Amino acid sequence: MRRRSTVRLSAEDVQQGFALGCQAIVESDLDILIPAQEAIERHVTTDRVAAEISVPIDYEFTRSQPVSRLNVSLIPPSMDDQTDDWSRLLTALRQQHSLEHVSCSISLLKQLGAALREGEWHVTVISTQNALEDNTKTCRLLDVRPGFTDEDDPLWAAAVDIGTTTVSLWLVDLVTGKVKAHASEYNSQITRGEDVISRIVYASKNGGGEELQRQVVSTINKLCDSACKRAHAKPKEIIKATVAGNSTMIHLLLGIPASSIRLSPFITTVNQPPYSTSREIGLVFAPEAVIDCLPGVASYVGADITAGVLSSGLDKAENITLFIDIGTNGEIVLGNRDWLVTCACSAGPAFEGAGVVCGMRATTGAIEEVWINEGTFEPHYRVIGGGRPSGLCGSGLIALISEMFLTGILDKSGNINLTLPTKRVREGGHGSEFVVAWANESEHGKDIVITHIDVDNLLRAKAAIYAGYSVLAEQVGMTLENVQQMVIGGSFGKYINVEKAIQIGLLPDLPWDKFHFLGNTSIKGAYLALLETSERERIAEIARRMTYIELSADNTFFEAFTSALFLPHTDISKFPSVRAVLEKS
Amino acid sequence: MRRRSTVRLSAEDVQQGFALGCQAIVESDLDILIPAQEAIERHVTTDRVAAEISVPIDYEFTRSQPVSRLNVSLIPPSMDDQTDDWSRLLTALRQQHSLEHVSCSISLLKQLGAALREGEWHVTVISTQNALEDNTKTCRLLDVRPGFTDEDDPLWAAAVDIGTTTVSLWLVDLVTGKVKAHASEYNSQITRGEDVISRIVYASKNGGGEELQRQVVSTINKLCDSACKRAHAKPKEIIKATVAGNSTMIHLLLGIPASSIRLSPFITTVNQPPYSTSREIGLVFAPEAVIDCLPGVASYVGADITAGVLSSGLDKAENITLFIDIGTNGEIVLGNRDWLVTCACSAGPAFEGAGVVCGMRATTGAIEEVWINEGTFEPHYRVIGGGRPSGLCGSGLIALISEMFLTGILDKSGNINLTLPTKRVREGGHGSEFVVAWANESEHGKDIVITHIDVDNLLRAKAAIYAGYSVLAEQVGMTLENVQQMVIGGSFGKYINVEKAIQIGLLPDLPWDKFHFLGNTSIKGAYLALLETSERERIAEIARRMTYIELSADNTFFEAFTSALFLPHTDISKFPSVRAVLEKS
Repeated sequence: MRRRSTVRLSAEDVQQGFALGCQAIVESDLDILIPAQEAIERHVTTDRVAAEISVPIDYEFTRSQPVSRLNVSLIPPSMDDQTDDWSRLLTALRQQHSLEHVSCSISLLKQLGAALREGEWHVTVISTQNALEDNTKTCRLLDVRPGFTDEDDPLWAAAVDIGTTTVSLWLVDLVTGKVKAHASEYNSQITRGEDVISRIVYASKNGGGEELQRQVVSTINKLCDSACKRAHAKPKEIIKATVAGNSTMIHLLLGIPASSIRLSPFITTVNQPPYSTSREIGLVFAPEAVIDCLPGVASYVGADITAGVLSSGLDKAENITLFIDIGTNGEIVLGNRDWLVTCACSAGPAFEGAGVVCGMRATTGAIEEVWINEGTFEPHYRVIGGGRPSGLCGSGLIALISEMFLTGILDKSGNINLTLPTKRVREGGHGSEFVVAWANESEHGKDIVITHIDVDNLLRAKAAIYAGYSVLAEQVGMTLENVQQMVIGGSFGKYINVEKAIQIGLLPDLPWDKFHFLGNTSIKGAYLALLETSERERIAEIARRMTYIELSADNTFFEAFTSALFLPHTDISKFPSVRAVLEKS
Repeated sequence: MRRRSTVRLSAEDVQQGFALGCQAIVESDLDILIPAQEAIERHVTTDRVAAEISVPIDYEFTRSQPVSRLNVSLIPPSMDDQTDDWSRLLTALRQQHSLEHVSCSISLLKQLGAALREGEWHVTVISTQNALEDNTKTCRLLDVRPGFTDEDDPLWAAAVDIGTTTVSLWLVDLVTGKVKAHASEYNSQITRGEDVISRIVYASKNGGGEELQRQVVSTINKLCDSACKRAHAKPKEIIKATVAGNSTMIHLLLGIPASSIRLSPFITTVNQPPYSTSREIGLVFAPEAVIDCLPGVASYVGADITAGVLSSGLDKAENITLFIDIGTNGEIVLGNRDWLVTCACSAGPAFEGAGVVCGMRATTGAIEEVWINEGTFEPHYRVIGGGRPSGLCGSGLIALISEMFLTGILDKSGNINLTLPTKRVREGGHGSEFVVAWANESEHGKDIVITHIDVDNLLRAKAAIYAGYSVLAEQVGMTLENVQQMVIGGSFGKYINVEKAIQIGLLPDLPWDKFHFLGNTSIKGAYLALLETSERERIAEIARRMTYIELSADNTFFEAFTSALFLPHTDISKFPSVRAVLEKS
């Protein structure tokens, strides 16, 4: 399941002097040219993701979160009262704010004397209650700042989502509960592997884990700087962060070896990491800032999914709901307020444009929608940014496969019909292929094609996901027809044409109004867990409630996968709407 | 009180080409020659201190300390049980050892997966109970080691005493409670100042605090290595350390700024530091080893004194007891099982040989005992190591002053009588002086003398200490005559001739059998606090019970100090045994 076909070079590529970077031997100094498209892609993706979260969810803030900010006045020491600084502060906290059982790190003690004296014995104390761990309310100091602070001044915190591809940060004011700025950026670990498996392999090499940790930390720090600039905040004022992400991303952030995640029986070191501090991890927040990595469920169902369940409200839904987060992995949750089951299917990154000859991410120049004339087999397409096409992104690939199938260019097994009366079907360097755009229309002056191997990769990916739904439903004794609503998380999902995704068998055949696209459900969950103790408790409860089903241990999975390798499925009765379309044509 | 006369160069010294290092300007490359005596001194002192603790106190070990070592077997994970490593360990700890509320650092989690797999799911878990802080017994893991450990195998811990001059470490096996090796060494901070005040000044400079922290850490690490070698232990196996030391030493160890200790009103940042870890401080112990810095009372009454009170049993004494630890500072405690008062008098390092022209530490070549013939004024002396003398150490200085006083070379104000019929009294480069050893008897071929300025420094030092006793006694409405026993800690104290120390007025005039010399009471206290939870609680109780009296805020102190500047005291009635001797002669 965790292999995927590799796209190799065609005879033509080799003739033109192309070589596989991973196979070529460097024999002398060389210049590396980065194609212009790659260079701008970063910026565009960032903007697109940012646009998507420009109106963060509106949440009624009840101010029941554990971080508090207090103005404290101490009686200055004198020869008659030589109490140490720390005991003096404890006395003031007890007398002025009824705070008991207060603790503090050595690291914060290092700043205490200077803060008290600089503030002339008036200070702002930021503390957090350990409400989650035991019933006695203990309290830990996070910062002591000279002087008093106005009640209305922002108290900065952050919600972070670490995706394998993209990292997002929301800068939150805990006083108002509002998101004051946000930023997204590629996870700079991407230079060390595109999926979690290759990251784990890299991390297992000498020093690799430390390097990947530094990379994701530097990505978060960059996002923090940029969000802070926009909100006129200082990174050192951020006092807490909740972090969502898949289990591998969380392990790499904390510097915990992730190698056992990759190997059967696929075990994480920890699903519910203890609190950590900004200082321990190397983040630019306040050194003692609480880093709260949200709880996950299993190696391939991490905190991104529990956070997604939280923010989508699946755990409180009356209706039976199917939740999917399609990223580099496809994680699926099925359930309602009474029960929750989950699984992960390693779909591979085909729908992100990887492992596909002309695949690319959803950025400027990507074909995002395709229509094919059933008489002439001539395609029309829409390009992101409106210019000439450079390749095909996920939604474009879904549309293309669907149109090729409905027009008979593909048979139900995914074979390209080379006998059709069009030059667009042909035998190419990678086997049979269909030309979506001719060289003279494209940005780079080369044909944009989809090959038989590409189709095969995409069918394997969608089959893995569909088999995931099926097995999950079967495990609780139901079928997909019983699903009452479907929730799709992840920025990828937002741009899918539902009709076409159903036609290729990627989404189950439900009425279109049952589908809800929620965007980045993971960071929204992190945001809620940051704002409210009750939501933080709820996410822990969600993690406890979710029953994880390991697909590779399930005998029925391989059968379900094989059946789903067809368009839309071996059993067309599972896709009545598609059957109706096929019968009409 | 915190000034002291500086010994400057005589005209003769200058003529011979001597210059003050702190004043000289380096104008070209230069070679620095370290006198042979300095080079060997380190070794000798180390040996001497080591000899002193060669028979560590015998203690009935009840095994009620919070660190425990457990053999734990985990059910290996499988596709049917994909529980994460940490939850799997928690389950085993709960089922096999009834351990609940277990926590662990991110840092230890980094090693967990490897330890479990290397031990093939059999591990040794070392944990500590947080029994001191709250009533719910929480437990923190300190180490997880692959494989099982025999019950009788040592479980290593350390007791550490950080003196301004000397650092000592006892390597303790928590299984038997025995000290298995010990080591002592100069505190390498000594190159940055000889007393706490000059260390604080140095620490306040840019990067100075970090440097002093590194220095004391490297001293402890060196001691640890050397003790471990002798006991066939590995530093990484040491799982806990209790640390005693004066408040400045503890602040510098933890990297907490100490500047407010030096300035009125003399405030520490913290008297009862929170637990820290070996990793945070940079020690070579197990990274998560608990570093328990014992509680102190005030800026100049630190954990060395509370530990001293603990190990001397002063807090349980029926008799009214006076405890003094004469080091670079003189810390005094007066009390019994019902009450405890304490003060510190900055005696300065005169009794350690500093601030005295021919002063030196108690090492090879130091004159440690002196007798003067009252007819001829010819001195006899005993030299440490038996060779030629190089200078005078503390006990030698006490004996010399006493003999000079009783033979009339000194009057009761400390003036040298230049009219006596001996060449040994003369006007020298530093004013009037007495020659203890002529150039031809000495190691370095120069006269060994004591000057009027030296005597003045020594009288100021002993007056500060004596005034400390008096004011402390006065504060509780009694006189020194009510003291029923006197306990003297610190390695310096061990070599004092009691009779002569009384004769100069350094010790109060009690019967000799009331004096008890206990050596390094500080490390003994650290050892007890390491071994038994009840002793650790007792030392916290001692710190709470001790009432600190700030001498510089006490109006009667200056008067008491002035009265004590004489030999033995203005009021001779306070020293009846000395009066008897004087009357006889």
